[in-house]
Amino acid sequence: MQAELLIHAPWILPVDAADSQLDDHAIAVSEGRIQALLPSTEARASIEAQRVIELPGHVLTPGLVNAHTHAAMSLMRGLADDLPLMTWLHEHIWPAEQRWVEPGFVGDGTRLAVLEMLRGGVTCYNDMYFHPEVSAQVTAEAGMRAVIGMIVIDFPTGYAADADGYIAKGLALHERYRGHPLIRVAFAPHSPYTVSDAPLSRVRTLADQLEIPIHIHVHETRDEVTQSLRDHGQRPLARLDRLGLLDPSLLAVHMTQLEDAEIERLVATGAHVVHCPESNLKLASGFCPLAKLLEAGVNVALGTDGAASNNDLSMLGEMRTAALLAKGVSGSAAAVPASAALRMATINGARALGLDEEIGSLEVGKAADIVAIDLGDAHTQPVYHPASQLVYAASSHQVRQVWINGRQVLRDGAPTQLDAADTFARARTWGERLAARD
Amino acid sequence: MQAELLIHAPWILPVDAADSQLDDHAIAVSEGRIQALLPSTEARASIEAQRVIELPGHVLTPGLVNAHTHAAMSLMRGLADDLPLMTWLHEHIWPAEQRWVEPGFVGDGTRLAVLEMLRGGVTCYNDMYFHPEVSAQVTAEAGMRAVIGMIVIDFPTGYAADADGYIAKGLALHERYRGHPLIRVAFAPHSPYTVSDAPLSRVRTLADQLEIPIHIHVHETRDEVTQSLRDHGQRPLARLDRLGLLDPSLLAVHMTQLEDAEIERLVATGAHVVHCPESNLKLASGFCPLAKLLEAGVNVALGTDGAASNNDLSMLGEMRTAALLAKGVSGSAAAVPASAALRMATINGARALGLDEEIGSLEVGKAADIVAIDLGDAHTQPVYHPASQLVYAASSHQVRQVWINGRQVLRDGAPTQLDAADTFARARTWGERLAARD
Repeated sequence: MQAELLIHAPWILPVDAADSQLDDHAIAVSEGRIQALLPSTEARASIEAQRVIELPGHVLTPGLVNAHTHAAMSLMRGLADDLPLMTWLHEHIWPAEQRWVEPGFVGDGTRLAVLEMLRGGVTCYNDMYFHPEVSAQVTAEAGMRAVIGMIVIDFPTGYAADADGYIAKGLALHERYRGHPLIRVAFAPHSPYTVSDAPLSRVRTLADQLEIPIHIHVHETRDEVTQSLRDHGQRPLARLDRLGLLDPSLLAVHMTQLEDAEIERLVATGAHVVHCPESNLKLASGFCPLAKLLEAGVNVALGTDGAASNNDLSMLGEMRTAALLAKGVSGSAAAVPASAALRMATINGARALGLDEEIGSLEVGKAADIVAIDLGDAHTQPVYHPASQLVYAASSHQVRQVWINGRQVLRDGAPTQLDAADTFARARTWGERLAARD
Repeated sequence: MQAELLIHAPWILPVDAADSQLDDHAIAVSEGRIQALLPSTEARASIEAQRVIELPGHVLTPGLVNAHTHAAMSLMRGLADDLPLMTWLHEHIWPAEQRWVEPGFVGDGTRLAVLEMLRGGVTCYNDMYFHPEVSAQVTAEAGMRAVIGMIVIDFPTGYAADADGYIAKGLALHERYRGHPLIRVAFAPHSPYTVSDAPLSRVRTLADQLEIPIHIHVHETRDEVTQSLRDHGQRPLARLDRLGLLDPSLLAVHMTQLEDAEIERLVATGAHVVHCPESNLKLASGFCPLAKLLEAGVNVALGTDGAASNNDLSMLGEMRTAALLAKGVSGSAAAVPASAALRMATINGARALGLDEEIGSLEVGKAADIVAIDLGDAHTQPVYHPASQLVYAASSHQVRQVWINGRQVLRDGAPTQLDAADTFARARTWGERLAARD
């Protein structure tokens, strides 16, 4: 057999249905797709590859899927910490956004975030931010995959004047990226408390027509629920249900407040939850009942949220926090084992985004979105179970090689399509501007 | 003024009483001690140094103090995950220890842990394990500082036959390291459930005579408390109190179960708590009420616990988890800000170990235990507040230079006193041996 690329590694975690671990195997890649997964000895005998890469000491995984972030907010990393959500939003983040957010900010911030995510093994992210046309362009240029949110919000910003304006701009974006190999577009109404019924209904209708996901913050805090009961006589999730939003196109982000009947309703409708444990902790938003959701059969993906409330975009770190926190919250050390955390960060994210035919696992026929992580560091030795080292000990710096659609976008820890020095210089300039005003 | 070494950095976090941040300052070091801390411009004009180091983009902090670990257990990292404490101990860790732990294991495991900790900016650790004479020797050879525990436990192991045997061996160790520049020794009775009253009383008496700390696991789980009520008619902390152990020499590790009266008793006696958030989460042991303890005025230090229940020895990661988890548990996003987490990982640890005159902050006259962390990575840019980047985003790989007693033990991320390749090779060999039997 001929192949363009053949990668050998001592361990491959394909994240297939059986949570297999393949020892001393190889992945053959051609035309951007996974062509074969087989023992290295067989591969050496049967595959004639244009390029062969040997990665001793590395584990290969599917590209990680960051199912919720606001990439451009990387420029506000650490600007305002140790504050509750509403103080943080109203007194720091929203004023800073009002003052600074324009296409140049979004471009430079997204570039920093894309660089950080590629270096951390993230090959696809689900974004929600202003000027999404800029995020889409920067991401495509970096060779990275993303689902870019068509943000919708009731109030005016520098990006659009009202809900109709946001939707119109979003639809233009959707049109521009139709059929693009890396960029997909989803609706991203900000939250039940910032978007009223009429635009939410319109989003529902349009999402059905375009067959795309709806990405929204829901039940992030107890206050959000209390306020909705006062203003709408309903909990936010019930209101979204009334508006027809609960179905397999929905990504409900955060979900720290959940009654048992709501969990049942998520199961019945096939809506997805995106868990952001570090952001929920940092803003003291509450605990998403992760172990309960997984046990009930809800598809739960994992997200970092924006860097302003995390403060990094490391999905390795987020897997660790999710696995550890679920044990503490459920009171069971057996809850959310390493393999489950890895599923959340890969195939569950792909499924939530409607991309699981394409990405989320290393299986023949899928896109070659592959990450190689070097376990040769002191803190990941010795290796009894590579999934354990990955989830409980590895850090982003150990991600050495990343391929997306078979193209190498990170080589020996350095981006191939992005100018790192220029990206840092721009980030520092924005940092100085924002700091001067803070 | 003359100095042996002068280090310039854009940011210094000395962890002094005011939680200062010094911008564009320098540290002068001579004879292993901090001689001066002053603005770089002044230092350039007034100090004639034998060696000058410029660290643009770096933050300098005191060496981190890992206040609770079992260093040699690094060789069991990831051997058995996702199990509750008692299953993990009785079915995996204790049998593995019974089978494998001998001086060679302790030496190779401690060397791996020391390497990992130095690379993560830890300059002092507080250990509890068998064959402590081996840990002491390996640590001293690496140029690292430690408080080595004289372990005491009722039952026989390969190290000693009974409590008296453990104590006798411990006293010999204490004698050997009297006056050593790096190694101190403390009593380390394992826990109230593994050490009976008589040896605990003897430890109390001897610790008074030798003026050294007592390091013990207390209230790690609810089961421990229930069992003590059944067997002793008292909660473990009350039993230690009855035996006279609650005073400023006590480091009570874990403390996930705490009633308000117990917190008051800790305050009244001046006993220290060592918080190990990642281990407590991983073993689902419960939540230590960190914010409440700090508010009450208890001195709380931070520890990673052993690598088998964490699974790394990163104090940067532990600071992050402590700060994030305290917000979630207390319901206040303002709880345990970055500066408080940094205090826990430095001066509070030093104080708990009785070493705060010597280490724990960068102040004139103290030992030059200094860590330089490069914030130039994507995930720590831009820099608004270096303490925030350190606690909420930085990772061990960014630690580039480490000095202990003024001697450079990590240079450009590589140990100067340890053979890293040999350390890894030995760890892998142990990994293969243990895996073959698991």
